[in-house]
Amino acid sequence: MSQRTLTGTGATPRSSVGTAVWYSQNAELPDPDDVDVDPATERDRFEAARDTARSELESEREQTAERVGEQEAAVFDAHLQFLDDPQIGDGAESAIADGLPAEHAVHRAFADPIEQFEGMEGRMAERADDLRDIRDRLIRLLTGGDRTDLGNLPAGAVILAERLTPSDTARLDPDRVAGFVTVTGGRTSHAAIFARSLALPAVVGVGDELRDIDDGATVAVDGETGEVVVDPSDERREAAAAAREVEIRDAPVATADGAEIEVAANVGQPAELEAAKDRGADGIGLYRTEFLFLGREAPPDEDEQYETYLEALGAFPDGRVIVRTLDVGGDKPIPYLDVPEEDNPFLGERGIRRSLGPDSELFETQVRALLRAAADGDGRLSVMFPLVTTVAELDAAIKTVDAVADALAADGIDYAIPELGVMIETPGAVFVASELAERVDFFSVGTNDLTQYVMAAARENETVSAIRDPRQPSVLRAIDRAVEAAHENDAWIGMCGEMAGDPELTELLVGLGLDELSMSAVTVPEVKAAVQSVDADEAVAHASRALEATTSDQVRERIRSRDS
Amino acid sequence: MSQRTLTGTGATPRSSVGTAVWYSQNAELPDPDDVDVDPATERDRFEAARDTARSELESEREQTAERVGEQEAAVFDAHLQFLDDPQIGDGAESAIADGLPAEHAVHRAFADPIEQFEGMEGRMAERADDLRDIRDRLIRLLTGGDRTDLGNLPAGAVILAERLTPSDTARLDPDRVAGFVTVTGGRTSHAAIFARSLALPAVVGVGDELRDIDDGATVAVDGETGEVVVDPSDERREAAAAAREVEIRDAPVATADGAEIEVAANVGQPAELEAAKDRGADGIGLYRTEFLFLGREAPPDEDEQYETYLEALGAFPDGRVIVRTLDVGGDKPIPYLDVPEEDNPFLGERGIRRSLGPDSELFETQVRALLRAAADGDGRLSVMFPLVTTVAELDAAIKTVDAVADALAADGIDYAIPELGVMIETPGAVFVASELAERVDFFSVGTNDLTQYVMAAARENETVSAIRDPRQPSVLRAIDRAVEAAHENDAWIGMCGEMAGDPELTELLVGLGLDELSMSAVTVPEVKAAVQSVDADEAVAHASRALEATTSDQVRERIRSRDS
Repeated sequence: MSQRTLTGTGATPRSSVGTAVWYSQNAELPDPDDVDVDPATERDRFEAARDTARSELESEREQTAERVGEQEAAVFDAHLQFLDDPQIGDGAESAIADGLPAEHAVHRAFADPIEQFEGMEGRMAERADDLRDIRDRLIRLLTGGDRTDLGNLPAGAVILAERLTPSDTARLDPDRVAGFVTVTGGRTSHAAIFARSLALPAVVGVGDELRDIDDGATVAVDGETGEVVVDPSDERREAAAAAREVEIRDAPVATADGAEIEVAANVGQPAELEAAKDRGADGIGLYRTEFLFLGREAPPDEDEQYETYLEALGAFPDGRVIVRTLDVGGDKPIPYLDVPEEDNPFLGERGIRRSLGPDSELFETQVRALLRAAADGDGRLSVMFPLVTTVAELDAAIKTVDAVADALAADGIDYAIPELGVMIETPGAVFVASELAERVDFFSVGTNDLTQYVMAAARENETVSAIRDPRQPSVLRAIDRAVEAAHENDAWIGMCGEMAGDPELTELLVGLGLDELSMSAVTVPEVKAAVQSVDADEAVAHASRALEATTSDQVRERIRSRDS
Repeated sequence: MSQRTLTGTGATPRSSVGTAVWYSQNAELPDPDDVDVDPATERDRFEAARDTARSELESEREQTAERVGEQEAAVFDAHLQFLDDPQIGDGAESAIADGLPAEHAVHRAFADPIEQFEGMEGRMAERADDLRDIRDRLIRLLTGGDRTDLGNLPAGAVILAERLTPSDTARLDPDRVAGFVTVTGGRTSHAAIFARSLALPAVVGVGDELRDIDDGATVAVDGETGEVVVDPSDERREAAAAAREVEIRDAPVATADGAEIEVAANVGQPAELEAAKDRGADGIGLYRTEFLFLGREAPPDEDEQYETYLEALGAFPDGRVIVRTLDVGGDKPIPYLDVPEEDNPFLGERGIRRSLGPDSELFETQVRALLRAAADGDGRLSVMFPLVTTVAELDAAIKTVDAVADALAADGIDYAIPELGVMIETPGAVFVASELAERVDFFSVGTNDLTQYVMAAARENETVSAIRDPRQPSVLRAIDRAVEAAHENDAWIGMCGEMAGDPELTELLVGLGLDELSMSAVTVPEVKAAVQSVDADEAVAHASRALEATTSDQVRERIRSRDS
């Protein structure tokens, strides 16, 4: 049997071999003629299904919050809200009154809202998918249809699916799943993020060809190259299985010629601290604080934040924990903040702009909690500000830190000024990098945002994904300029975007002069291994050649020629 | 009587003094009890009002297309569509059947759609305003309410309004209006763009305070500083009146020490060519070609385009006409192109990205028409590509030009390769500016887009307008880098964004090394005068100081200190 290879987007640098299991929601409507209808009974059936759906959603919400993160779990809140929308309830009620059985009443009640959302634009249109999810859940519960039981799969299953929704991934048992492959989705889709957070081999966006793979086929999934091999050869199987083994290095690592590079983890909530330690991270290079603010009715108070920061510091008593202050905007709505809808949210009021504007009280409270934690915590605390674009913004942020310190001193409360840094994620920041570096201890390059702004190509837009590549010479030159500005001003510079977690790029990044790399915990061991294999002088020469390249294809070639 | 000063956003560098005239749509609903209702009569009244509204809209569409441009006129197509929407017709019909008079039926028929759109996001929410406009138009026609007759104002009227819609500006008689001031709106609002295209003094976005100005008050409007002075002092009146006089210079101008700077006009459609010549433009620095494609069912063919380009060349037989190839995207939808809705259209598939992608056939046709016009036209034709972000894109565009030339040669059709250029409007282009400059004859800096991308602040978003300032040191440094790359590679460099038309910035731009400045025709005389007053050496020193500034406030100060 000869092997066949399909290609999609690799979601995580892991590979595995397993048995294909197609996943689908079974939500078929029965023929209406077969059903004997008593409106009172149907009303009870509808209410019962809605109750069950509610408790399913609540438990899936909890599971997702625990396993993936609060931000990903927020989608379940939206589903719960839709489920109890009076328009749905009234619609089903009136369809039942018209003599329809409950499952058909559900179908009719959702038809109008789905159509309305389909006619809209952007994020609103995506809500049509949410509505379909909820509708199908109710119909499945009413018809007794089974979902593929994602929690009870044969060991070594490779899930194949059209797409995996948050509700689906929440039920996946990662210990029994060898990986998954989806027809749709990109590197930043929910499924891909989920795969990275659990270190699951996964390929997304393979396209229609995936449908030709039968249940039970043997499939090798390479989440690094994006290849999905059906009926893999023996060599391919062995390679895929072998690639799963990687040594965990607990101590900091250095290049072959002794230049130490800090390898840290990006963390989105406290539950991930353990995974970061387990994978051998030297510290936390990006501690996102949005989880503290999302999925609740009111912001956390100073003490709650203080305790949370102490916990993070306690997890890395010998390392550094870099906390990023609240980074929200039109793309990450929070109910109790008045975040306006914007036509181009990525070019709107985000990050430090909100902290210096409408969220300034929230920002002060966060800074107070951080300054107290810096005094009382075990490890070293660093604080960085997101989306700084001008020197005036940084000056204003530092002024807030100083004012908070004065207030704490006046109140006789212990505090310390942590190491301060700015994220380099806008071209504006790159062009004033020297002036920014004079004012802080460190930079952290956020390559996802930096790339989208330098290349004018939105993170979520698949159409422009070829342009939005951190291997574009323009992006490399922007990073180079930031490194130069940092080092000339005695600041150190790290990186916490996707780029930092790609071991294929480690030599390039070391050569560009980055002092720290921070990534999803899953790839820490690979990147530590890659650092140890780098010769620093050769890396600098390699980086120079990449900087001189004219196109991203040339950069890729030059990187590839290093690997071979 | 002491003068009182309100401040908003200046829309055009013009000032004037006049008499305040408040403008409002009178669309009050009569008390329903007073009306005697016969459904058949009401149905006829409704149909008659709709017919009148339709013909009003059609004639306003024509007027706007002529006076302002096809792009601005497109909003009337949307209004006409809404007017004939079955939901509106059916809603009014059923309200009349319920016994309501036509004006109340109209009110009820629009209530639901307006509420639906209000609940939506971004551009969709703006449609609620469109619906209100149409509703009020119908109610006015039904109740016999008069609009302030914008076409028949006392000479020297300064219009004060909540906002001016496209339908309002279309009816303004520019010869009788001394200017206008609005409560809402920003520099890129329809009203502001309209003011610039007609050289009308205008201030927008003054806020609620404007409502305190009474009809008949004497008002000085300064469209440069954004000041609106009520009961101005004699000095203020004289200054405002004097500022209207400016000498038209027909010949190219040079700095005081003899460095020639080309001062050209931005043109959005053929009707504006005349105004550009009248204001003394040396040529066309930006000939937008969107008007050829907007507001029609099918794209223009090669011959229609060829004739249009010849006409533009004929208008400036001694000058240069720089045609920008089609620049559309999610923010400028065209019905026959399949332009997808995007969440962040400014970071989406726009400009050259579409010309090298889904619109490649359209692009080839346009290039064919341009190459033929370059051979047959009177003046010098230049062609530039919008939103180039990578060298690979420019190479692909040049490859298309070469292929089209080969095809024309094979067909025995006369052609010439025009001067080729790229717009510098993304940070990506700035970082590979040397490689781009090696491949073309010229650059043209599009400061509106460049500023929004460098500063990560959307053009339309008022919340981030302070960050989105071309006087930010980061933007100046990006421009400086582009100038250096151009000159090192024997290319010339112009500018066609808003910044080029601000005479306060002329010395800075000359000092940065720009060889050409292109702007709305209205400001050509002021900029020519400003060029003549510049000493090139001093300008270079001035530019160096601006480049070394740390904040936009410092840049402003350094510019201001030059003026005084």
